[in-house]
Amino acid sequence: MSNGMWFPTLGLLATLCCFSMGPVQGGKVLVMPVDGSHWLSMKILVKELMRRGHEVVVLVPESSLLIQGSESFRTEIYKVPYTKADLEGTFNEDVFLKPPEFADLIVNIKLLVDFTSLQVKGCESLLDNKPLMNRLREQGFDLVLTDPFLPCGSVLAHMFSIPAVYFLRGIPCELDMKANKCPSPPSYVPVFFSGNTDSMTFSERVKNFVMYGVQSYTCTILYPHFDDLVSRYIGEISTYQELVSHGAIWLLRYDFTFEWPRPLMPNMVLIGGINCAKRAPLPADLEDFVNGSGDDGFIVFSMGSVVSTMPAEKAKHFLDAFRKIPQRVLWRYTGALPDDLPKNVRVMKWLPQNDLLAHAKAKVFITHGGSHGIYEGICNGVPMLMFPLFGDQGDNVNRVLGRGAALKLSIYDVTTEQLLGALKKLIYDKRYKAKMMELSAIHLDRPTEPVDLAAFWTEFVMRHKGASHLRVGAHDLNWFQYHSLDVLSFFAVILITVVWMTVKCCQFCIRKCCGKGTAKRKSE
Amino acid sequence: MSNGMWFPTLGLLATLCCFSMGPVQGGKVLVMPVDGSHWLSMKILVKELMRRGHEVVVLVPESSLLIQGSESFRTEIYKVPYTKADLEGTFNEDVFLKPPEFADLIVNIKLLVDFTSLQVKGCESLLDNKPLMNRLREQGFDLVLTDPFLPCGSVLAHMFSIPAVYFLRGIPCELDMKANKCPSPPSYVPVFFSGNTDSMTFSERVKNFVMYGVQSYTCTILYPHFDDLVSRYIGEISTYQELVSHGAIWLLRYDFTFEWPRPLMPNMVLIGGINCAKRAPLPADLEDFVNGSGDDGFIVFSMGSVVSTMPAEKAKHFLDAFRKIPQRVLWRYTGALPDDLPKNVRVMKWLPQNDLLAHAKAKVFITHGGSHGIYEGICNGVPMLMFPLFGDQGDNVNRVLGRGAALKLSIYDVTTEQLLGALKKLIYDKRYKAKMMELSAIHLDRPTEPVDLAAFWTEFVMRHKGASHLRVGAHDLNWFQYHSLDVLSFFAVILITVVWMTVKCCQFCIRKCCGKGTAKRKSE
Repeated sequence: MSNGMWFPTLGLLATLCCFSMGPVQGGKVLVMPVDGSHWLSMKILVKELMRRGHEVVVLVPESSLLIQGSESFRTEIYKVPYTKADLEGTFNEDVFLKPPEFADLIVNIKLLVDFTSLQVKGCESLLDNKPLMNRLREQGFDLVLTDPFLPCGSVLAHMFSIPAVYFLRGIPCELDMKANKCPSPPSYVPVFFSGNTDSMTFSERVKNFVMYGVQSYTCTILYPHFDDLVSRYIGEISTYQELVSHGAIWLLRYDFTFEWPRPLMPNMVLIGGINCAKRAPLPADLEDFVNGSGDDGFIVFSMGSVVSTMPAEKAKHFLDAFRKIPQRVLWRYTGALPDDLPKNVRVMKWLPQNDLLAHAKAKVFITHGGSHGIYEGICNGVPMLMFPLFGDQGDNVNRVLGRGAALKLSIYDVTTEQLLGALKKLIYDKRYKAKMMELSAIHLDRPTEPVDLAAFWTEFVMRHKGASHLRVGAHDLNWFQYHSLDVLSFFAVILITVVWMTVKCCQFCIRKCCGKGTAKRKSE
Repeated sequence: MSNGMWFPTLGLLATLCCFSMGPVQGGKVLVMPVDGSHWLSMKILVKELMRRGHEVVVLVPESSLLIQGSESFRTEIYKVPYTKADLEGTFNEDVFLKPPEFADLIVNIKLLVDFTSLQVKGCESLLDNKPLMNRLREQGFDLVLTDPFLPCGSVLAHMFSIPAVYFLRGIPCELDMKANKCPSPPSYVPVFFSGNTDSMTFSERVKNFVMYGVQSYTCTILYPHFDDLVSRYIGEISTYQELVSHGAIWLLRYDFTFEWPRPLMPNMVLIGGINCAKRAPLPADLEDFVNGSGDDGFIVFSMGSVVSTMPAEKAKHFLDAFRKIPQRVLWRYTGALPDDLPKNVRVMKWLPQNDLLAHAKAKVFITHGGSHGIYEGICNGVPMLMFPLFGDQGDNVNRVLGRGAALKLSIYDVTTEQLLGALKKLIYDKRYKAKMMELSAIHLDRPTEPVDLAAFWTEFVMRHKGASHLRVGAHDLNWFQYHSLDVLSFFAVILITVVWMTVKCCQFCIRKCCGKGTAKRKSE
């Protein structure tokens, strides 16, 4: 009530108060990562937690793609009944030749179930590894940091009775939103793979609604083996959706310069673009190469961590186009190369992508439209030429196209001329760069950096042993109750009863009156 | 993709990038406040914006309660067709004598409509004041900061074609949530005045659903004169709900240590507790008085800014109780006092409430349950003895009781014994203090202070001329479309058609077959 002076120390006091509450520093974090690109961004938070003085143990399967035991953090390696080769699968160059069809979707779901089944087996061999489990239990971890794309982290958190913090972009069939009771009205929240935006015509909304149903159905195909794992190791919980709903904080790689705005829940923390902060100077030879491009600048070209080759005839279109432009090109590519590789093209097995995109001379980013790459493009304000291949890429590309900051070409029938046209448009029509810079400015304009926000909330959960004050009451309701269908049924029963009784009363009265009338007439 | 070193300067770069985009400093903010306690917390943000170098102009009606022209910020006084006495109304001590009944609710709605009608008239005289309006328009404001409890700020923002930032706890009949398309499932989001929590039995959910309907109905009573104002001054918009839906950012005095968790929208920024940061040292005589309480500590007693008296016989119960406790009491009270005022009681016309509650010796806060006071109690970890009187106070008190950090007594039949019992419980049963400290620790544990967050998002809107990337697509849908009822109707029509055609086909076939059979039998 007083209008007195400001005490700038209040924030400090608050911080001190919290420091005294629990393990801000010296917390113990058990990390159950998901392999591949999932791990690349989670690792940023893991390193930040270590930098802040927390003890981090990363559980690493003995066969893994990118989770390496040689990093600076402590790891516990556990045996799994599969090899690295089983994980790698065989990348099929067919993805460059014909667009995915409905049959491919079914094949992809089957492949996904095969992959996650393998991972579930890996999880079982961890959970059955008594010595390791005992060792982990004895360490008294404060929380599990995991990606709920796979169930093992949530199972561990429940078995050790410690809270879980999730780090994710999303999980198949929107189980994350369902489990966290986050409303997703199908009238304006586009369903993944629907090709819709957040502004739909009637027919698009019909399609979205149908896809919403299909999506819910795919949940019943994708998660039974997760449910089985959960119910075998945790007696009182029978579905993965229920288990995953207990996550204390959901760190979502989400940002509304990329995603369409939608409802959120109090325990959802948006950390989209967390992967952009990790930036290093370019190696000297690369710096020389890109600087040598002069005012024309250079193009960064990568189809992501999974796809590093393409059919030779497809590659030829790209090389022919690059031959005709003054820009230099850096291409992540491991396929065979012709002898007459253009002088302005440099091919590498692995690109420091974000560092290159951050360079002032970067003009265009040719990408498949993975979410990590898109954030790096937005972060650094580089217009994109996009070639969606599979998975969420089509949806991701739609989002960026909708902002007017990119062009899309079909990889299946791309020509040298199309490529030249698109590149020229992106480089010389200033609107694309301007739009991208606008997105970038909005994306980077935030009160707290994503990595600090992620670390803050992870520490918050350690300090307060969860975040139960952010858990909505909806978790105690079933589907019927949540939608007030029981209440509506109750009103319907009352209404029907009242109507029925009124009708019966009227019938009775009419019968009485008419009966009397008839009797009277008869007697007359 | 590289695992290189961290660049701690990224945040700085981002900030610089944004500084170059627009008016981070030197923005021009037009403030259209709402009088009374609404203004007390908005003023905190206004002062912070000035501290950050923005030019702030506050529109002040010539008759106002708390918005004073003597503050350090620039004001524009405008004529209004009412006096200060019209605003003050007459506080009726009856609120201490009997609980509000349904008839009172209707009376209160009428009083509210009378009050807002007066304010609408004040707004009209501002909008019709051509010289002032021209002067304001010429100043080229970057945004309007307003509380949408009253419509004038939103109207000004629309007329000047500049974005609006809202500062509010909520507006009657949840028009804020409706306008911002924020889902509020009545199955677990308790409706105001329902007395429900976020965990309801079936009958409570039935009540909540009914209250949800009643609440929607009250909207049709509360806002027609706002709609009228809007349609008269802004041709293309016909309802206040539509106008208010254009708010760029909603700064909500909301925090989930106080409120129950519920869905949110991307443009909602939670700044609950913003009023706690404003803290000053106590005046020397007050500091002496509270320090003189020794280990017993002291009690802060205030029934809010509106209610400063109570019937003498009611006050006697309090004084008799205070006489019997070792604690000292600071009481905001302007009523008549007995000659034998207890020595441990000090009566004041206005308390530096937050500064007192922040004192280490503060033991209990006796309050009516206004949201400002509750945040000050939570912020400073002081257990509360609550006497809800009217308005949102019953709901507010329910929220704190639900946390186990307070006790509630009925003001209508309170006795000295009850008071003594409750105070003793709150002071000597350590669970209340522990629970309050827990809430306080969670409340204060946040990545950004509320005042900084509020200032950040206000500046964000100035820098980017709005926050359209946070506006959901739902705004383009009507109620029928939003709930997918058109899509469902379409499916229903298809289903009915298919069923009808199937039945007709079957009938036709049966008739054919049976017809043939009958004909055959006949010919036989």
